[in-house]
Amino acid sequence: MVRFLVLYNTPEDPAEFHRHYREVHIPLAKSLPGLRRYTVSRDVALIRGAGPYYMIAELDFDDRAALEAAFASPEGQAAAQDVPKFATGGSHSLVYDLEDA
Amino acid sequence: MVRFLVLYNTPEDPAEFHRHYREVHIPLAKSLPGLRRYTVSRDVALIRGAGPYYMIAELDFDDRAALEAAFASPEGQAAAQDVPKFATGGSHSLVYDLEDA
Repeated sequence: MVRFLVLYNTPEDPAEFHRHYREVHIPLAKSLPGLRRYTVSRDVALIRGAGPYYMIAELDFDDRAALEAAFASPEGQAAAQDVPKFATGGSHSLVYDLEDA
Repeated sequence: MVRFLVLYNTPEDPAEFHRHYREVHIPLAKSLPGLRRYTVSRDVALIRGAGPYYMIAELDFDDRAALEAAFASPEGQAAAQDVPKFATGGSHSLVYDLEDA
C-alpha cells in the first residue's frame, strides 16, 4: 500500500477552508482512479516538535504505479489545482510505502 | 482508529539511526499495550512543501484512551525516552483520529 499524506497548515479563514474542503475538494479527491481509502483528520494534536499541523488527509493506493496514474489523470490534475484555492496557510504532502515493522 | 504519526528528520548518522531503530526502537514500540498496527516507511518522497522528512512511523490504536494508556505504560515511557538517542535530526509526532472522508 502506498500512502499520500497531506499536512495542512493553519489556514487564514478556517471556516472557509472547511467549507471548500467539504464541498469541493472531497468530491474531487474521491473521484481519483484507484483510490482505496481516504481519511481526513481535523483534530490533530502535536506531541513532539513544532509546527502548525491543522488538518491531515491520507489517500491510499495499491502501489506507486496506481498513485502516479491517479495524479496524472484529469481528476488528479483538478484535485492538485484545487489545493491552492483553500490551503491558504500552505501544506506539505508526502508519498511513502507502508511496511509493517 | 487513532494514529500516532512520527516524522523523522534526516539524522546525523543514517546508518546508526537505522541500526538503533531496527535493533532497539522497534522492539520497544512493538511491546506497547494496545498497539494494533505499526508501519515504518523509509522511502519518503516530498511532493509539495519543504522540509527534511526522512522516515515515517505510524502506530495505530483503537482509540485515544488506548493510546494514552500505552504512552503512560512503562513500555511507552521507555519508547519515548529512546527517541532522542537515535533521532539526532529531530522529529515531529502527531496524534489524530481517522475519519473516512
